[in-house]
Amino acid sequence: MTQTLLTRRDEGAVATLTMTAPATLNALSVPMLAALAEAFARLEGDTAIRAVVLRGEGKAFCAGHDLREMQAARRSADGGRAWFSELFARAAAVMQAIPRLPQPVIAEVHGIATAAGCQLVASCDMAVAAEGTRFGVNGVNIGLFCSTPMVALTRNIPRKSAFEMLTTGAFIDADRALALGLVNRVVPAKGLSEETAGLARSVAGKLGAAVRIGKQAFYEQAAMDTAGAYAYAGRVMAENMMLRDTDEGICAFLDKRKPDWPV
Amino acid sequence: MTQTLLTRRDEGAVATLTMTAPATLNALSVPMLAALAEAFARLEGDTAIRAVVLRGEGKAFCAGHDLREMQAARRSADGGRAWFSELFARAAAVMQAIPRLPQPVIAEVHGIATAAGCQLVASCDMAVAAEGTRFGVNGVNIGLFCSTPMVALTRNIPRKSAFEMLTTGAFIDADRALALGLVNRVVPAKGLSEETAGLARSVAGKLGAAVRIGKQAFYEQAAMDTAGAYAYAGRVMAENMMLRDTDEGICAFLDKRKPDWPV
Amino acid sequence: MTQTLLTRRDEGAVATLTMTAPATLNALSVPMLAALAEAFARLEGDTAIRAVVLRGEGKAFCAGHDLREMQAARRSADGGRAWFSELFARAAAVMQAIPRLPQPVIAEVHGIATAAGCQLVASCDMAVAAEGTRFGVNGVNIGLFCSTPMVALTRNIPRKSAFEMLTTGAFIDADRALALGLVNRVVPAKGLSEETAGLARSVAGKLGAAVRIGKQAFYEQAAMDTAGAYAYAGRVMAENMMLRDTDEGICAFLDKRKPDWPV
Repeated sequence: MTQTLLTRRDEGAVATLTMTAPATLNALSVPMLAALAEAFARLEGDTAIRAVVLRGEGKAFCAGHDLREMQAARRSADGGRAWFSELFARAAAVMQAIPRLPQPVIAEVHGIATAAGCQLVASCDMAVAAEGTRFGVNGVNIGLFCSTPMVALTRNIPRKSAFEMLTTGAFIDADRALALGLVNRVVPAKGLSEETAGLARSVAGKLGAAVRIGKQAFYEQAAMDTAGAYAYAGRVMAENMMLRDTDEGICAFLDKRKPDWPV
Repeated sequence: MTQTLLTRRDEGAVATLTMTAPATLNALSVPMLAALAEAFARLEGDTAIRAVVLRGEGKAFCAGHDLREMQAARRSADGGRAWFSELFARAAAVMQAIPRLPQPVIAEVHGIATAAGCQLVASCDMAVAAEGTRFGVNGVNIGLFCSTPMVALTRNIPRKSAFEMLTTGAFIDADRALALGLVNRVVPAKGLSEETAGLARSVAGKLGAAVRIGKQAFYEQAAMDTAGAYAYAGRVMAENMMLRDTDEGICAFLDKRKPDWPV
Repeated sequence: MTQTLLTRRDEGAVATLTMTAPATLNALSVPMLAALAEAFARLEGDTAIRAVVLRGEGKAFCAGHDLREMQAARRSADGGRAWFSELFARAAAVMQAIPRLPQPVIAEVHGIATAAGCQLVASCDMAVAAEGTRFGVNGVNIGLFCSTPMVALTRNIPRKSAFEMLTTGAFIDADRALALGLVNRVVPAKGLSEETAGLARSVAGKLGAAVRIGKQAFYEQAAMDTAGAYAYAGRVMAENMMLRDTDEGICAFLDKRKPDWPV
């Protein structure tokens, strides 16, 4: 592979990942999934980075899996069965790597986000969309129900809306995505990158250790019953209080001055 | 029983069930529940039907259980206890039969949908409401908290809104039901049947096997943790890829032609 | 302690608890938590009370924990670790006491509700907010991620919005809180107490036993899978039917007269 499918640019404590396969609408092919997996693995240990933006080059954020690549896999002896299982497992691993990353990940979405591309938006911690963006889980239109995108989608939006999107294959627009909770903000297309960068800088400007602690706790407590979640979150918060920088942060607040934190 | 409580009319791949007890506002009496259970059981094996509409004749979609029937049951030796248990178990079975049906079920709602009638809307996979429809879980007004309707309602709408509806017994209008996620669409009353039929035809026009696979996976994955849901949905999607008609659907899409699917 | 931190005023079947520490913006200090715990414990057995309002005196509903008190605890031999654990455990116990109370609890919110103050709003069964109220879980701004408030917040509002509030520390206004499901109603500030009192009177006017049964079932069934929730709620509803006052409530409804209920 000589083609670069994913670029990373760092600016301060924000890393921006750009999918650069516009000819396939940034399809989540096996090489693209590998590139994402590798980029996420590197970010995991990169303590200088405190927020991540994920975007796509060209006309669309991401149009899902690579159908030509999938059809080619049918030629193997088992008709593609093993390859398909592997593909969906790889994609699921990439999607689940996002909540496990220590840094918040923000999807910067434009054009279309469909099928596994919509799943990618749903899997990010936050999302900012350009006006005019269309979202869909439209595999049903070609006879392939978006079962794996559904896992992420149904954990973002209300039940009946998710069911309608999945069984009709219809698009929703950015305002509807905002109302349903699939994205956090909708802005004019020309301000998209700046809005996303601003949100990323805001998060990156916080105490990194606190955000890291908090993001991990966010997803872990969500899977617990309320009493268990409180027992766990109470321990997390007591540990957070023991950080020297948190002591300084609170002192600074009480003294009405800026905290002296590591940059 | 000589009276018909439920009619079925098929048009293409869409079956429309109409509750025909307008004098009781289509109350979910034991005979009505039996009629619904029987209709659903028949649909389960009916592969010619790919979408179902559920509607009510007369002034209301459904006003809940039949209070006169319930009061009559108090005359038995145990004061009705066994009969009440049986009634709520029957109703729960009917409600839970809907997500288990292979076909998507769309509630076509007008007038009022109260108590177990509101539960029926919440239990359907999708719902279209006429402007002016009122929704409520108002049993609390007569001293009977809507505990079983609550099971379905709280799995559709946010917590505090559900709590308010249940403890105040107040109605919400169709626009509020839409904003909360209890219904998918709100249309003028005179266009209700056509809007619902259009949605049903849209779903029925998809590859039946894909929708069937997807609907089952929709509810099963929702009850799993995220990692388990992905492992399960990945298997479902790989199986979906092995269908001959899915191969054809993807080929047709890549060739920019209509798929040659069974009608 | 000579200062009164919490007052209770009863009017009919409605008890109003007012936090009276405006100098600290009604901070949830250890004494305030103790006062709330004691007030809730008394309400638990008070069958004359059928609804509770929780409000704050002064400029704010509640601004969270008492940071000065927390910083003072650092002076102990373990740097405050044991004290912090105890604080978060006490706060979690108070928050979880609210859904366990037999009476619905309504937060009457004005000014600001931040950090553990926002958690308190999220923990109440319902909430009414004055226009202009600001909500935030902004501990991240001082290096202390709002991990315990997160437990309540994420059980009220959609995932991506909660994540944004927690990692940016940004405020949301009352209208946004309403759209997200954090509060039930937003009214002009001058009508806040009357609106909340009206909601409380509405709930208190129902049959107390039915509301008590229903509130308990509301939270218990929410933690169950759907089939388990139906089995449980069916039993609850059959028991509800056996109440003499419910029999009377239904008879009165069928006879189009007011029920003869205990006041």
